[in-house]
Amino acid sequence: MSPAKRVVIIGADAAGMSAAHQALRTAKRGGRELEVTVLDRGTHTSYSACGIPYWMAGDVDSGDDLVARTADQHRAAGIDLRMGTEVVAADLAARTVTTAAGEIVGYDELVVATGAPAVVPDWALRPDGTTYDGVGAVKTLDDGATWLEQFASADEGAHVVVVGAGYVGVEVAEAALRRGFGVTVLTRTRGMAMLEDEMSDLVNAGLRDAGAELVLGAEVTGLDTEDGRVTGVQWDGGNREADLVVVAIGVRPATEFLRGTGVELTDGGALRPDPHGRVADHVWSAGDCCEVRRRIDGAWVFRPLGTYANKHGRALGDSLAGGSLTFDGMVDTSITRFSYGEVNLEIARTGLSRKEAEAAGNDPVALVTEGSTASGYMPEAEPIALWVMADRATRRLLGVQVVGGRGAGKRIDAAAAVLWAEGTVDDLAWMDLAYAPPFATAWEILQVAARRVAERL
Amino acid sequence: MSPAKRVVIIGADAAGMSAAHQALRTAKRGGRELEVTVLDRGTHTSYSACGIPYWMAGDVDSGDDLVARTADQHRAAGIDLRMGTEVVAADLAARTVTTAAGEIVGYDELVVATGAPAVVPDWALRPDGTTYDGVGAVKTLDDGATWLEQFASADEGAHVVVVGAGYVGVEVAEAALRRGFGVTVLTRTRGMAMLEDEMSDLVNAGLRDAGAELVLGAEVTGLDTEDGRVTGVQWDGGNREADLVVVAIGVRPATEFLRGTGVELTDGGALRPDPHGRVADHVWSAGDCCEVRRRIDGAWVFRPLGTYANKHGRALGDSLAGGSLTFDGMVDTSITRFSYGEVNLEIARTGLSRKEAEAAGNDPVALVTEGSTASGYMPEAEPIALWVMADRATRRLLGVQVVGGRGAGKRIDAAAAVLWAEGTVDDLAWMDLAYAPPFATAWEILQVAARRVAERL
Repeated sequence: MSPAKRVVIIGADAAGMSAAHQALRTAKRGGRELEVTVLDRGTHTSYSACGIPYWMAGDVDSGDDLVARTADQHRAAGIDLRMGTEVVAADLAARTVTTAAGEIVGYDELVVATGAPAVVPDWALRPDGTTYDGVGAVKTLDDGATWLEQFASADEGAHVVVVGAGYVGVEVAEAALRRGFGVTVLTRTRGMAMLEDEMSDLVNAGLRDAGAELVLGAEVTGLDTEDGRVTGVQWDGGNREADLVVVAIGVRPATEFLRGTGVELTDGGALRPDPHGRVADHVWSAGDCCEVRRRIDGAWVFRPLGTYANKHGRALGDSLAGGSLTFDGMVDTSITRFSYGEVNLEIARTGLSRKEAEAAGNDPVALVTEGSTASGYMPEAEPIALWVMADRATRRLLGVQVVGGRGAGKRIDAAAAVLWAEGTVDDLAWMDLAYAPPFATAWEILQVAARRVAERL
Repeated sequence: MSPAKRVVIIGADAAGMSAAHQALRTAKRGGRELEVTVLDRGTHTSYSACGIPYWMAGDVDSGDDLVARTADQHRAAGIDLRMGTEVVAADLAARTVTTAAGEIVGYDELVVATGAPAVVPDWALRPDGTTYDGVGAVKTLDDGATWLEQFASADEGAHVVVVGAGYVGVEVAEAALRRGFGVTVLTRTRGMAMLEDEMSDLVNAGLRDAGAELVLGAEVTGLDTEDGRVTGVQWDGGNREADLVVVAIGVRPATEFLRGTGVELTDGGALRPDPHGRVADHVWSAGDCCEVRRRIDGAWVFRPLGTYANKHGRALGDSLAGGSLTFDGMVDTSITRFSYGEVNLEIARTGLSRKEAEAAGNDPVALVTEGSTASGYMPEAEPIALWVMADRATRRLLGVQVVGGRGAGKRIDAAAAVLWAEGTVDDLAWMDLAYAPPFATAWEILQVAARRVAERL
């Protein structure tokens, strides 16, 4: 019997632990022996970063609720999990990694699942590299715990400035409003800039209707501080007193230790694994440290989302253990919510933007259609706006975006399914979606929106 | 210039009026002249029959709210609409129809959109053919108005017996419970028999948890009456005092006047139009008087749903006026809700049943998977059960059924899209559905359910 294959996984979150568990399952099925070691520099495994804004909002009782599986649960499954263990170097020829403590760990197969920490710009940092008090990102469970403390100790009427109006920015704005704080959202571009302008405008209006101050085109230039604590934010063209400043401007792959090893990285530091998760001989990767392949135009894009980490991690674990599962890319689907007071917006998108469609050689035709999530006479009916885009020549569906009330957001899934199957806008318009008065109009609004575009091709 | 083509449409509801308006639009675009006459034996046009149970429940203020377009609105669009005009005979050779009043109306193109009135069994009828007082169906706006009156004049604590536990039966049970009545539901089979047994059981449990009495396998044999008014219901093996009896056992195509004309009808009296809506030379049909073609197995099935009526009516109207739109069948998607007190079930299905799959030569593998509509730590999370079926040899997705809390039902649309595209269970498992904590688990439950089936093929 050959000795057990040594698999070393760096990173104990969605991608890494999906890979670990799937590798063990597949190996067991195939009668193979695997030794799976997971090294993670942090203190928490397998937590839902996406849930942190809802913990901040008060929806979630405890950070523990966000942990899908504890370290002990992973260990009980036969994984040698070592927390607080940062990998600082890798030697692909020798097949070893080196930890910050100087330990050298040998591997037969290496899995890079190091994720992507939050970007914290220089203006948020003291000369010693730590953030000013009252300033921070929203990425780790420790971040969440810190914000819970900050929220608890803040004065009534305290003012929270959120820098960034993407998914996290909008979710944190909701959390801060629900906690009773004043809220300013600063964005270099627009609210939810991954939406087309006309859909983004609906989010902007929602933020303002909910009582948030929203400043578009604001490039933050610095903070005002007092005794190491933030007291205000300055930006091109304005400034605001602030008790708390949430930095939500994105994340960056944690792949520094791979520089110079021969593993190819993008300018942004991302990996580009194949559908099995391979990036080089005996080196694999999945999750937030990777770009993902968009099926519609074949583009590699950086979309650090848990759902891709889980799927690619699973395919990787299976492949590494002799299986054949693949992660065959995505169609750029995402969703969030902004809900406060009378404002309740579900926000979702799938497919390409108009610019991306044009760049890929399409002749896109797009329209916004307004309607209702349920039959107009039903109490469930809420407004919904849909942006649908298709290619004039091929009639292929290229993208759909949704902003609307309860029941609006997950409608994106039907559109994502059409994109996955490379269907046309006519498929979307004529296929068989569910209708009953509490759920839809007799012509489902997604299909009305598709039909209107189809008629203009 | 040729004289205007005379289009005569029988039936002024979803299919007929969709056809009428689309025909006029297409004709206008093509520079054609059409004279569109619509004959309807009833008193209301274009109403939502599906909305009547919600009107009965008190969700909808007035029957007028269920009318999508009034007769005057149709006339303003240039349609010669004649209500209270029943067609009793057709002569395809002479191209004429005859009304109950004896008028002969000539046509160039005839559209049969007569719909399907409710089946009312003999036991519900007096010797003169009218229903006993307190007994009736739920199909027309007049039915709805009658039930509103009956509900208003019923004593507190009155008991409603609903015969039939399909979509209408379950919806009316909800309405009666919400009105404060005692409710008994009688069904020859099971609750929502269009579901597999294990999913139907969840509906049965929901009805009972909500306080309804549910009797399975009950064949009604007769009514008890007093002075022409119902006082009780008898069935094989039982009986119940009843103040009101709602008959919800289905509908039947209104095509008697076509017998002997040469137009082909099924044993059940249904028409089988082609994708353009053609049934014979110069004769067209769409809507509830027709069967529809199920794409998955090619079977013709009787599914009198408004969404098919609208779609086929539109394709018909376009085709009749020189266009090329087609209604390319369906995948057997439907949805409803049963909600009362603590019970809130969204119920949806798409695709084949196990029996249908076997009859079509598949080797079906099916599993029920339980999970959550949102991340478990979110207040939005509600239980959901999904039944997923695929073919062992081809891995093709064959059917999906869902019973669960808010947000469960419309998940069926993503599955319906996969069926529409003839995709596999792997497509469903791996495609890119939207995830954020208020909307889904990180592995969307629909995809977990698909994956579990995929692993067993």
